[in-house]
Amino acid sequence: MNTLETLKQFLRIPSVSTDPERAGDVRHAARFVANLLRDAGLNSVAEIEAEGRHPLVYGEWLHAPEKPTLLFYGHYDVQPPEPLEEWISPPFEPEVRGDNIYARGAADDKGLSLILIAAIERVLRNENPPVNIRVLMEGEEETGGEHVEEFVRSNPEKLKADAAVIADTEMFAPELPTICVGLRGIVYGEIHVQTAEQDLHSGMYGGAAANAVQAAAEIIAALKDRGGRIQIPGFLDRVRQPSPQERDAWNRLPFNEDAYLHEEMRAFTLTGETDVPLFDRLWARPTFEVHGIRGGFIGEGAKTVIPARAVVKVSCRLVPDQDPAEATQQLEKAIQAATPKGCKASFQLLSASPPSMVDPDNKFVRAAADAMTEVFGNKTVFTRSGGSIPVVSLFQQHLGIPSVMLGYGLPDDNLHAPNEKLYLPNFFRGIEATVRFLEKCG
Amino acid sequence: MNTLETLKQFLRIPSVSTDPERAGDVRHAARFVANLLRDAGLNSVAEIEAEGRHPLVYGEWLHAPEKPTLLFYGHYDVQPPEPLEEWISPPFEPEVRGDNIYARGAADDKGLSLILIAAIERVLRNENPPVNIRVLMEGEEETGGEHVEEFVRSNPEKLKADAAVIADTEMFAPELPTICVGLRGIVYGEIHVQTAEQDLHSGMYGGAAANAVQAAAEIIAALKDRGGRIQIPGFLDRVRQPSPQERDAWNRLPFNEDAYLHEEMRAFTLTGETDVPLFDRLWARPTFEVHGIRGGFIGEGAKTVIPARAVVKVSCRLVPDQDPAEATQQLEKAIQAATPKGCKASFQLLSASPPSMVDPDNKFVRAAADAMTEVFGNKTVFTRSGGSIPVVSLFQQHLGIPSVMLGYGLPDDNLHAPNEKLYLPNFFRGIEATVRFLEKCG
Repeated sequence: MNTLETLKQFLRIPSVSTDPERAGDVRHAARFVANLLRDAGLNSVAEIEAEGRHPLVYGEWLHAPEKPTLLFYGHYDVQPPEPLEEWISPPFEPEVRGDNIYARGAADDKGLSLILIAAIERVLRNENPPVNIRVLMEGEEETGGEHVEEFVRSNPEKLKADAAVIADTEMFAPELPTICVGLRGIVYGEIHVQTAEQDLHSGMYGGAAANAVQAAAEIIAALKDRGGRIQIPGFLDRVRQPSPQERDAWNRLPFNEDAYLHEEMRAFTLTGETDVPLFDRLWARPTFEVHGIRGGFIGEGAKTVIPARAVVKVSCRLVPDQDPAEATQQLEKAIQAATPKGCKASFQLLSASPPSMVDPDNKFVRAAADAMTEVFGNKTVFTRSGGSIPVVSLFQQHLGIPSVMLGYGLPDDNLHAPNEKLYLPNFFRGIEATVRFLEKCG
Repeated sequence: MNTLETLKQFLRIPSVSTDPERAGDVRHAARFVANLLRDAGLNSVAEIEAEGRHPLVYGEWLHAPEKPTLLFYGHYDVQPPEPLEEWISPPFEPEVRGDNIYARGAADDKGLSLILIAAIERVLRNENPPVNIRVLMEGEEETGGEHVEEFVRSNPEKLKADAAVIADTEMFAPELPTICVGLRGIVYGEIHVQTAEQDLHSGMYGGAAANAVQAAAEIIAALKDRGGRIQIPGFLDRVRQPSPQERDAWNRLPFNEDAYLHEEMRAFTLTGETDVPLFDRLWARPTFEVHGIRGGFIGEGAKTVIPARAVVKVSCRLVPDQDPAEATQQLEKAIQAATPKGCKASFQLLSASPPSMVDPDNKFVRAAADAMTEVFGNKTVFTRSGGSIPVVSLFQQHLGIPSVMLGYGLPDDNLHAPNEKLYLPNFFRGIEATVRFLEKCG
């Protein structure tokens, strides 16, 4: 494979999975991936279809019975490119400027997926490939991922492996090889508040009528105190402290708080639990966060209604050893307890996924860390992410395997934003490191 | 004047002041009123124009130098009729069904304004009319009332009078003649909250980033406690208790709390300050009310943003002896004090008007009460309203005169709603009572 030329071809396909008009392009990208897998030497390559879904692409090579089996995951769909006017070069016309290649999907996740495929091609050229290989690539990562969820749930035998390998995360800092060993889970839903059948006039009824937005505010304010501490009874009971080793490692990470706050977040102050270290707050503590609220009159000017209804979108990020079902119950109960007089409130769950942790002493994780240390010339660090990668918990739940999350992206890759890029030295070193990782596994 | 026929003609004019396409109809209604005033015997009748405004209609009769002068106010514009499909008969085709006439504006305020004009016509037929008369009718009451405000402010001499007479309020209950002697004022504005330059991802930054909607909720929840008590320092200091006589009278008003809550408000529970009687809460206590809120993601489904901005529309109703400027300062200060860490908040004032009180022992009020008692056969009651009628405070501030608020509407007249109506017996008794009132003034 001419890897850079192949990457450019891959990036030229506008496989925006959220856009129904791009369904043909998404299919084209699936076909492109399937051909890459065939060329890499995989067998049984198939585009797996399902009604109303974008295809999954599967391939395998299982001819080393004594060796471990790895399940490689990536996604070939991309985020929408808008706003187009902010791109320096068009999003689907990849352009190399300096050491970077710019295009939608360069890092998330076509570039990083191609690192895996190129490494697979390399090791399958060996006379005795060091591992058995399964590859599963999806085209719905940016739009819900229902197809991969159904498939994993229904085909645990077909996907049997010793570990999963995912390249969809980033380095903590440039030149610092990074493996992500923890992800937060999430419970996401809506709080629906009602105080009357219809809005009331604040002149006539103000002083006697419950107000749905006031009630929503009181509920929200009750669930987390001003010190950032969640006030949901029992919610923090199962929260596992990071190990002293893990915290030590976090303390040694290169970090400039001022740049983080003012250049990256562009916020006024770091907030949250003041007695908890920053990386704990981001990676090892649960959150309660409001994502949006609507209620009453929000047009121009003044309208004196007492709103009868309000809706609040909220989520809680979860950490080991919290359980989504238990957390949901605790949240629901706390909402009921915080609901003021004259008001009915309910919680409607939209999605839930558990937190994931990978043991950094797992042999596959160790092998990957050693390989990355050798290739990048700096010691690999283990971090967590405060977000969720749904397949990681899918693989953990249904296949019972850990995921090795190889971080080859960079913090400034502009994922989901204009001028997405991939740092080309990482592309080539990533292929090299992944090959070495697979050799170490064998 | 054939009063009922004239009322129907008046109601056929769709003078919706908020609708730019109805500007011609609003002008037509102004012309209609001007002609009525001329026919009633007034002099110097004029349609007063101003750029971008609907006309004011003015007329006067000032030939009784020894007699008091009354300034009559009404408005000839109406609310939009939508939703049209809920009207039993079309909104601009007045229809008498039973004892009621149905049409947009029947009660608010064409019918009640016409009561005043018909009574004026009657007394000007006398050889010695009992009072001097000025009439000012506006066409913007439902859309801000800027024209009348500018005019009153700039022409206090032209409007010199001993009292104003307004028929734009309602009876407390059917057959119970009612004069409104108090109105709440208002301070209305927006709280703008910001925590960062842009929304942040709750997976990456949840635990360290301030959330603008959470901050807005904390501010709102801090300004009023769960017992309904406003928590704005100093805000309640100037609140005047109703007199024992006034409270006694309120206690004797016919009132069915169950019907009020379940049929009129259609709410779950009466709320507010539990140690304060209901009519005090509605008429004699200030409020803090949220009218609307927006912030973050409010579309379908789940989006995990930490919102950087939120806007909340709020108002405080004011009662004697609160001052809008002082109340605004107190509110602003309380918002600043309640603003959490990592967040900037500001208050943007949209409008303010002072509370008004009329002395029920004022001779014009007494004359009106006596006249209404005679005609309606029940003793006139004095109530207040929790809302605002901006011209009442305008007249108080700029002309230094009290307003006699004759309540001829009924609580079920469907103001601002489909199937607005006027109870015809009140129309005719209102004319009779107003004539007797004017005779008593003379």
